[in-house]
Amino acid sequence: MEDSTTAAKRAKRTLRVAAISGSLRRASANTGLIRAAAKMCEESIPGLQIDHVDISDLPLLNTDLETAGGGFPVAVKAFRDRVRGADCFLFASPEYNYSVTGSLKNALDWASRGSVKCWADKAAAIVCAGADFGGGRGSLHLRQIGIYLDIHFINKPELHVRAFDDPPKFDAAGNLTHAESRERLKKVLLSLHAFALRLQRKEE
Amino acid sequence: MEDSTTAAKRAKRTLRVAAISGSLRRASANTGLIRAAAKMCEESIPGLQIDHVDISDLPLLNTDLETAGGGFPVAVKAFRDRVRGADCFLFASPEYNYSVTGSLKNALDWASRGSVKCWADKAAAIVCAGADFGGGRGSLHLRQIGIYLDIHFINKPELHVRAFDDPPKFDAAGNLTHAESRERLKKVLLSLHAFALRLQRKEE
Amino acid sequence: MEDSTTAAKRAKRTLRVAAISGSLRRASANTGLIRAAAKMCEESIPGLQIDHVDISDLPLLNTDLETAGGGFPVAVKAFRDRVRGADCFLFASPEYNYSVTGSLKNALDWASRGSVKCWADKAAAIVCAGADFGGGRGSLHLRQIGIYLDIHFINKPELHVRAFDDPPKFDAAGNLTHAESRERLKKVLLSLHAFALRLQRKEE
Amino acid sequence: MEDSTTAAKRAKRTLRVAAISGSLRRASANTGLIRAAAKMCEESIPGLQIDHVDISDLPLLNTDLETAGGGFPVAVKAFRDRVRGADCFLFASPEYNYSVTGSLKNALDWASRGSVKCWADKAAAIVCAGADFGGGRGSLHLRQIGIYLDIHFINKPELHVRAFDDPPKFDAAGNLTHAESRERLKKVLLSLHAFALRLQRKEE
Repeated sequence: MEDSTTAAKRAKRTLRVAAISGSLRRASANTGLIRAAAKMCEESIPGLQIDHVDISDLPLLNTDLETAGGGFPVAVKAFRDRVRGADCFLFASPEYNYSVTGSLKNALDWASRGSVKCWADKAAAIVCAGADFGGGRGSLHLRQIGIYLDIHFINKPELHVRAFDDPPKFDAAGNLTHAESRERLKKVLLSLHAFALRLQRKEE
Repeated sequence: MEDSTTAAKRAKRTLRVAAISGSLRRASANTGLIRAAAKMCEESIPGLQIDHVDISDLPLLNTDLETAGGGFPVAVKAFRDRVRGADCFLFASPEYNYSVTGSLKNALDWASRGSVKCWADKAAAIVCAGADFGGGRGSLHLRQIGIYLDIHFINKPELHVRAFDDPPKFDAAGNLTHAESRERLKKVLLSLHAFALRLQRKEE
Repeated sequence: MEDSTTAAKRAKRTLRVAAISGSLRRASANTGLIRAAAKMCEESIPGLQIDHVDISDLPLLNTDLETAGGGFPVAVKAFRDRVRGADCFLFASPEYNYSVTGSLKNALDWASRGSVKCWADKAAAIVCAGADFGGGRGSLHLRQIGIYLDIHFINKPELHVRAFDDPPKFDAAGNLTHAESRERLKKVLLSLHAFALRLQRKEE
Repeated sequence: MEDSTTAAKRAKRTLRVAAISGSLRRASANTGLIRAAAKMCEESIPGLQIDHVDISDLPLLNTDLETAGGGFPVAVKAFRDRVRGADCFLFASPEYNYSVTGSLKNALDWASRGSVKCWADKAAAIVCAGADFGGGRGSLHLRQIGIYLDIHFINKPELHVRAFDDPPKFDAAGNLTHAESRERLKKVLLSLHAFALRLQRKEE
């Protein structure tokens, strides 16, 4: 049973969201979704804070790079620490060839190695931008990967931005300019926040 | 903030699990998993109760069978009511041709029709028995179906019983006789129970 | 080089396409795709003929309905014969809850039973009509099912008609009225025809 | 009817299989499957030759690395040339977190870039070694990726080696020692060979 001090503490606590873009290019619309989410959290979602985690420096996973004592290459170790320290996750990945990008899969795999379960038992949301189906097939693969990682994804709402419709929904630098998609992105973040809070309340 | 009476009430409340077998044959091992689960709950899992819901009487889904006012055929209505009244779900489905059975899909679809969301926002677990991979490909399809239905599946543990290994793990009537699989089934049920309780604790 | 007699013989041989709609309702847009395909073949694709196979009379699969000698219920037997007699397949299925319909899965499963491989080693194409992604998630499940059935699907072109865009692409009776989708449907049929012919040419 | 010269020419033509392992570690069992396949082809499958293509030197895909004229980094260009020059493909990938490895996905994506379709319209087979289901979930993801790449996978036989059963099926260096799996691997190669030949016979 909580006393009033504990309840107050909980009310104030901010959840940290490790946000990962599956695209490495500068003007990526998916990275743009993360920038938009970060700003939204700062401006209007108290209790949620985006930590944009870069994955471009990770080597291709090769378990021969791990040392006997469970040591990881420096960039991998830094990445794992940020994943581990997060309360929940936001993935924004383009769909390459009907699946997630190799870069994102590589990052997911590195943080799954070893005895420390960096991803486990945390809430997550997926957003994506792309042609046609907006990246939706990739997000289904990501959900299957998340089963083994023990990630709990929100089901609704989904956000697959059809980026190349006319008029475009992102500017040339990859910034999300489409008002309706921005509103939906905010709903995704609120849903992630609510789900992460539900999951934190374990039976004592 | 809960007072001690509320806490006591919660402790006593039993969660009802609508359990559905994807196989219609009498000696189905998957239906056997549900029987085993029902008995385990009765005997040793206070707080969890299995309601075995039969799906063999449902007609093939045809929305022309729905009446203008949202009416459903009698068997469909009865099925929907039991799904809707459940606190969480247990699916036990064989894998037919690398996916769930047509019967199970038909049942899932009927309870998704109309404005009442029978499946939504509830916890679920999947178990299966089969050859080779034990039905695991089918369970992955079921998880994808569950995204749209807004079901929250537990991730761990998984139970895919390799039913036809030697010695067999089920008797000729489809009863689960394999001790290790029984223990694992119990862990699945405990995990489902815990997850359902976590999800019930929404922000007030 | 073929002599004129062989060429004439080949020109005359028509491939029979068993076409199956996953929807049972009268005004189904997916059944409309099959009607459109049948007419196209009659009018302008010599060598390809659509046999529209109804699946609404099949009972829910229950292997207890099979008799000891491998006998099937009458409706099942008739269905299996038409599948078995076909040279290739055209599936038109709506997406129900991110997968194929229960009715379609039920039909696929019935024709997979027994020692006769009704689907095996034949070419197939998938088209669909639906909201949003146009049914594309369901078609991916169908492709996975087809692995075990040993169906060879064409990869391109894909046809997922966004049926509910404005203006609508089907009339109230489910007839395909959208010119661009009709052209694409024709390309699907030509691709299916070409692929089926390639697969028929086995090493002697 | 072919004359004897044509038949002789065909008999002599050897199909080149670009074989790719999804694992980068030295003692990988999946790389071991490729070594075993290469030796089998040399010794007893006339007409099929394995070209083991390494993917460990590829950078993480970033389209900013492509130059305006469609130029690629040196390692990428060399990889693409070998893929493009192949007649068909053999993939041997472990399953990392219920999907293909990031390294394999990265390689698949690099060879899909640009206007030249390196993978398109060729036959392929997938084999894998792993725990539990032997890597089978990953191979299903690979098949979905292959739809967009326009790869034609053989359906049968499948080979998912349960590598860690007792006794082990690979030695400490990753060499396949299990006789039954070797026989099945040979059947996969023969099936790939036959399917590649069928697909080559296009209408003139």
